[in-house]
Amino acid sequence: MKDLLYPNFSFQITYRAKGSLARLGSLRTPHGSVETPNFIFCATKGAMKSVTTQQMREAGAEIILSNTYHLLLRPGGDVIERWGGLHHMLDWQGPILTDSGGFQIFSLGHGGVAHEIKGNRSSGMNYPKTLIKIEEEGAVFRSYVDGQLQRLTPEMVIETQRKLGADLVLALDECTAFHMEKSETERSMERSHRWEDRSLAAFQKSHDGRQALYGIVQGGIYEDLRERSGYYTANRPYFGQAIGGSLGQSAEQMHEVVAMTCQYLHPERPTHLLGIGGAHDIWNGVAYGIDTFDCVHPTRIARHGVALVHPSVADGKESLNLKNHRFAQEDIPLEMECPCYSCRHFTRSYLHYLFQAHESLGGQLLTIHNVSFMARLMHHIRASLREDRFAEARAAWQREKI
Amino acid sequence: MKDLLYPNFSFQITYRAKGSLARLGSLRTPHGSVETPNFIFCATKGAMKSVTTQQMREAGAEIILSNTYHLLLRPGGDVIERWGGLHHMLDWQGPILTDSGGFQIFSLGHGGVAHEIKGNRSSGMNYPKTLIKIEEEGAVFRSYVDGQLQRLTPEMVIETQRKLGADLVLALDECTAFHMEKSETERSMERSHRWEDRSLAAFQKSHDGRQALYGIVQGGIYEDLRERSGYYTANRPYFGQAIGGSLGQSAEQMHEVVAMTCQYLHPERPTHLLGIGGAHDIWNGVAYGIDTFDCVHPTRIARHGVALVHPSVADGKESLNLKNHRFAQEDIPLEMECPCYSCRHFTRSYLHYLFQAHESLGGQLLTIHNVSFMARLMHHIRASLREDRFAEARAAWQREKI
Repeated sequence: MKDLLYPNFSFQITYRAKGSLARLGSLRTPHGSVETPNFIFCATKGAMKSVTTQQMREAGAEIILSNTYHLLLRPGGDVIERWGGLHHMLDWQGPILTDSGGFQIFSLGHGGVAHEIKGNRSSGMNYPKTLIKIEEEGAVFRSYVDGQLQRLTPEMVIETQRKLGADLVLALDECTAFHMEKSETERSMERSHRWEDRSLAAFQKSHDGRQALYGIVQGGIYEDLRERSGYYTANRPYFGQAIGGSLGQSAEQMHEVVAMTCQYLHPERPTHLLGIGGAHDIWNGVAYGIDTFDCVHPTRIARHGVALVHPSVADGKESLNLKNHRFAQEDIPLEMECPCYSCRHFTRSYLHYLFQAHESLGGQLLTIHNVSFMARLMHHIRASLREDRFAEARAAWQREKI
Repeated sequence: MKDLLYPNFSFQITYRAKGSLARLGSLRTPHGSVETPNFIFCATKGAMKSVTTQQMREAGAEIILSNTYHLLLRPGGDVIERWGGLHHMLDWQGPILTDSGGFQIFSLGHGGVAHEIKGNRSSGMNYPKTLIKIEEEGAVFRSYVDGQLQRLTPEMVIETQRKLGADLVLALDECTAFHMEKSETERSMERSHRWEDRSLAAFQKSHDGRQALYGIVQGGIYEDLRERSGYYTANRPYFGQAIGGSLGQSAEQMHEVVAMTCQYLHPERPTHLLGIGGAHDIWNGVAYGIDTFDCVHPTRIARHGVALVHPSVADGKESLNLKNHRFAQEDIPLEMECPCYSCRHFTRSYLHYLFQAHESLGGQLLTIHNVSFMARLMHHIRASLREDRFAEARAAWQREKI
């Protein structure tokens, strides 16, 4: 797909699995191409936590994300533009996606959504409740940086993202909580659509070929709303589509909502699932047709002593908590075959010691491993698609899981 | 110097400056040689803080230090021996020195010495006072890890350091505070000498050629005591000598005490100044005949937002506090000519932002820079010696300083 609005971007589906909607794709941006399915790591505030972008590259990361809401408040779009944009600021030569900020205004404003299914995406629990009101023009909230009243409109979000210079940018949406009534979810979705229309208009007005816009499909857990929102998005000239809003209150419901929503999406556009990053969820998401995922989970749990591993080495779970005393005795790498810096040089017992001694190196080494794990997982998924054995590979992984 | 006790070590003085006691040397260990003067970076608890040993190497570090006291308490000498020793544990192929723990027992036990001239060496302010008593046999203290009573004797310190496997090891000494009476300092020095004799005896008994022992010269601020302690150490078969104990209560007094002490040291042995690491102090120390320095200062201040820089770019000071608001406007590297990863890729304004936003990457990038700064400072000092212009180089540096 190459068109007038997105001359420097393309998304080519190079393989479609049989028996599921899983697919291989090539997502081309002005900062290089990435193969999909792929995982987008979170440099939320314009910095990876615990590691440098050089360490991210070495661990296998190919595309990262920053958050417009946080960067708008500090250091501000003008400052980042003066710095030459996010790529220069972060020293990241690959593609970058920026989240629009709708989710943050909502979750940091209410504090409630953080406990739902996308809880690990941006917990907001350390922030005061800041949302003042949402009106047709946009959201009004109090900056957690300086306490000043701030307004966020679709036009501002597009303008700010233009200054940040990410390759892939998102329209502003209004997020809704799981516990909302259907009628409220519907009203909110309709406002999101009006905001997305304004985002698109602002994008088209200032567009210079360096960015591609994603629409966001809303509708909560309600199939008829997801259908309406999917068609709304598919019928407008977005480059890609993201699945936003509430995905329910359990992993099972999330899988159902994602699978159901994917039926109504544009079949040729890159599809991003916002804020989901568990290995099991990713295998399922790929099967439903998702091309990219993002989540703070892999890097956040690393700082708390949790390493992502294949379920076969974690008694069917997806992770090991290195703070557990049993690891004091395990003089082996986190994963025997892992090629990451941490696994090549350090043992579980040493990592356990680092967390016991409150040495920040522990979080850094686990972050490197978890990034490598996610990159290898996505590589493994793509290889299984390329070799026409995705269903078996998915089943084999999930058999190991409890 | 190559002898029966230290067949795999040597220290060769390759140049002596005129007009000062400054000298160039080559310190050979089983893990490679380092040129002196050099700086030893602190991986106190068997881990660098904020950076990996790979990042340390890339930034120019050549030799590091760990602390026997901390590692004895956790994870313990036996565990580190099981791990293959410190080199394997840390993934550090170069030389390692281990501190004996005398200073830590004293400073963590009393909390007092931390505020004196070596205050940045190991502040101990986060630890409860743990020293129970010092008796002829050794020190009795309470472990800050598990509250158990622990005894530290010269024999145990040597045995533990044998298990840790560092190249350069220190005898156990008893540290004294500045405010001690001369008679008390003398009694403590004499006990240190007896402990060092026992350390030496234990070292000789178990020696296997892989380690070299340093004696520690005590005597506080009193010239006749430093003279006695210097001769005591010089007349015993230590490989090297470290200047320990109180160096006074001001930078000026420290310089006087070090200069005075150096007169009484063995002229051919490598000489280490414990816990001193300011650039100005290093220039002076080298002039007095010091070969190696260690201090947590460069890496500790980095985590608090302070970058080491040449005084010409800091209005005559030795550092810049990146938390200062003026740096928000400075879109230039910390130092224009610095080849470190941080200076090649990031600006003062971005670093300022990282500290404003409490992003731990800020501490990591400043740690990399400060390590590079210290490595370059030592390189610059050695080059000035090699080119027979140490006095001018020292004067030029100090002219820039307020």
